[in-house]
Amino acid sequence: MIYFDNSATTKPFEEVMTAYQKAAIQFFANPSSLHYLGSDAERLLMRTRQAVAEQLRIETEEVVFTSGGTEGNNLAIKGIAFQHQTRGKHLITSSVEHPSVLEVFKELEQNGFEVSYASVDHSGKVDPEEIKSLIRKDTILISIMSVNNELGTIQPIEEIGDIAGMYPKVFFHVDHVQGIGKVPLSLKKAKVDLCSISGHKIHGLKGTGILYVRKGVLLSPLFHGGGHESNRRSGTENLPGMVAFAKALRKIKEKEKKQLNELIHLRHHLINHLNVMEEVIINSPLSGAPHIINVSVPGIKPEVMIHALAKKDIFVSAKSACSSKQPDVSSVLKACNLKENVTKSAIRISLSYSSTIEEADLFLEEFNSAIRYLEKGR
Amino acid sequence: MIYFDNSATTKPFEEVMTAYQKAAIQFFANPSSLHYLGSDAERLLMRTRQAVAEQLRIETEEVVFTSGGTEGNNLAIKGIAFQHQTRGKHLITSSVEHPSVLEVFKELEQNGFEVSYASVDHSGKVDPEEIKSLIRKDTILISIMSVNNELGTIQPIEEIGDIAGMYPKVFFHVDHVQGIGKVPLSLKKAKVDLCSISGHKIHGLKGTGILYVRKGVLLSPLFHGGGHESNRRSGTENLPGMVAFAKALRKIKEKEKKQLNELIHLRHHLINHLNVMEEVIINSPLSGAPHIINVSVPGIKPEVMIHALAKKDIFVSAKSACSSKQPDVSSVLKACNLKENVTKSAIRISLSYSSTIEEADLFLEEFNSAIRYLEKGR
Ligand SMILES: Cc1ncc(COP(=O)(O)O)c(C=O)c1O
Ligand SMILES: Cc1ncc(COP(=O)(O)O)c(C=O)c1O
Repeated sequence: MIYFDNSATTKPFEEVMTAYQKAAIQFFANPSSLHYLGSDAERLLMRTRQAVAEQLRIETEEVVFTSGGTEGNNLAIKGIAFQHQTRGKHLITSSVEHPSVLEVFKELEQNGFEVSYASVDHSGKVDPEEIKSLIRKDTILISIMSVNNELGTIQPIEEIGDIAGMYPKVFFHVDHVQGIGKVPLSLKKAKVDLCSISGHKIHGLKGTGILYVRKGVLLSPLFHGGGHESNRRSGTENLPGMVAFAKALRKIKEKEKKQLNELIHLRHHLINHLNVMEEVIINSPLSGAPHIINVSVPGIKPEVMIHALAKKDIFVSAKSACSSKQPDVSSVLKACNLKENVTKSAIRISLSYSSTIEEADLFLEEFNSAIRYLEKGR
Repeated sequence: MIYFDNSATTKPFEEVMTAYQKAAIQFFANPSSLHYLGSDAERLLMRTRQAVAEQLRIETEEVVFTSGGTEGNNLAIKGIAFQHQTRGKHLITSSVEHPSVLEVFKELEQNGFEVSYASVDHSGKVDPEEIKSLIRKDTILISIMSVNNELGTIQPIEEIGDIAGMYPKVFFHVDHVQGIGKVPLSLKKAKVDLCSISGHKIHGLKGTGILYVRKGVLLSPLFHGGGHESNRRSGTENLPGMVAFAKALRKIKEKEKKQLNELIHLRHHLINHLNVMEEVIINSPLSGAPHIINVSVPGIKPEVMIHALAKKDIFVSAKSACSSKQPDVSSVLKACNLKENVTKSAIRISLSYSSTIEEADLFLEEFNSAIRYLEKGR
């Protein structure tokens, strides 16, 4: 099996499963219970929060555990919008964000907020100068993803952070779900106020994630209740999920340190070979994230290609998994102003640190014969 | 170890752990992915949803998977309030609800909604007639828990459902987190529109749960994004968590069928013996839920008693775990109009289907000596 759909989701690391299992059984008590089973769980929670904070070089109280990237994005954007709406109701984002960002902004537009959508170039990149020009007196939030989930495009987060930093009233949120562990980002240096990360994209578990909330940043919670996570996210803590998240984060960070160059090399190997295939158009920028390559084979429907490859036990995606059930035009590629035959035939190949050159070569071979076979069939 | 803190959280069933593990590894793909790993996951998800629906005698599309009871309560109450506010902004609940209900209503009061809090008798019970009298032309929601988490009081859900049913504009939400698997409730018969259930209270996993949403009931989501769960809860599905939830639900329902009388007997055994202890006041109604007994030993602080028992490896709670970090007066017992020396010294003993008479007797013995020891110390 060649699993090249790691941007949709990843297989959990074995160590993640073990850590989860152990915490779920040995530390099953409620961290809020007053007896020592409770306080043992509470201590593990504190250590886990600390481990996450250390990996991200942030402070423990800046970590809010969530159920994933979608919750993180919703909490960040609605949280800032509703908390700070008396300061202004103007928000800025881009036209290529993930649905868990875009749909939130659409909802906020229904609630009296005004949203400016920064455009992107043909590679999906936003222009910091355009972002700057969109800032108004009543702007309270800029939300830009670090890595685009369809194209792998890396956004100029530090530059945008510098701009946002010049406006003390403007908060800066980064959807780092596709970037974490693959595209380095210093939250402090980039002056990021809020940052969403999801567990299942880094070989952690589904239903886990964190939102980084910079110290001093107030946001209105999505869940009210017992006041957990310093009143930012009520609900009995999913301690085993948190432990699993911390483990996945540590492991992916290790791999980033040791294997990033290898992964970049693997991607270039694939791109070089895809480049010489006449029928193939490469949509991802060369300097994109090391794990994502988006290509189109005009005239071949993505679902047809996906099924052809799956027959050979090779797994790739059309667009993001998240919206792949909808009709086949990618709104991200459309925003890049790519031609319809390109946007209608896009395939996403997404790698992990355990992907190999051998897998890549086998993929190239099968991809090539699938094109030939499917072209004949048309 | 005698774990009598099952209302705070429960130890996961072994079968739950196994099912989780298996789904997390073998069905790790994203159910939205178009290849067959994705569609295999999607099919498992559908089967899981069906299994849950069958257990609850509801329809598959009425199941919304959540991250737990707190999310379920927030989604139900805010979801109805925001979706239907044009019809009216009056809401009804009781004064003894869980913080994940009460705090939501407090938040809604800040947002222009008006909330009526039904009172309770000395045992924590609401009066359906009072609920009826509180209904106004602009009432859109009644939210009442099935079983109180501190006292075990069972609310007259069917009677309230009948009343709510007479007002087509009024939705009826039930927080069934403490009731499920212990206090039978027919959602259809009781005319319930929305019902929250949490996995970790029934030997499932933390971070899992469902919200029942009756067919045709519209609610505005908390998470916007990819449109999962029929647009009611976006975010990549936590499939292993859902599988684990379904397994826990099936098991607890089996136990309810086979062992409910045993559990009721065990509770009465405890109550009978606690009753003859002179220093002990029983706060729970005799006809309460089979797993909860709330008692006070006036003059002895709950945390002191909890620590004394923990030294003997016996684990009980003060109030609900969820708010036990706050000062020791229970707002639930206060709402019951109990005296301050009672509300300040309440201990919650909460059983599971694996609790035994031997454990109960050992508990009684140690509880008795702890009282004697601690009374001397005063
Ligand atoms: C860029 C991006 N943001 C957010 C998400 C949503 O995260 P989750 O799947 O954890 O809800 C995803 C993945 O679906 C993503 O790729
Ligand atoms: C009655 C009741 N409702 C809701 C909740 C919240 O559920 P969860 O712990 O899954 O967030 C609890 C438990 O804390 C509860 O006892």
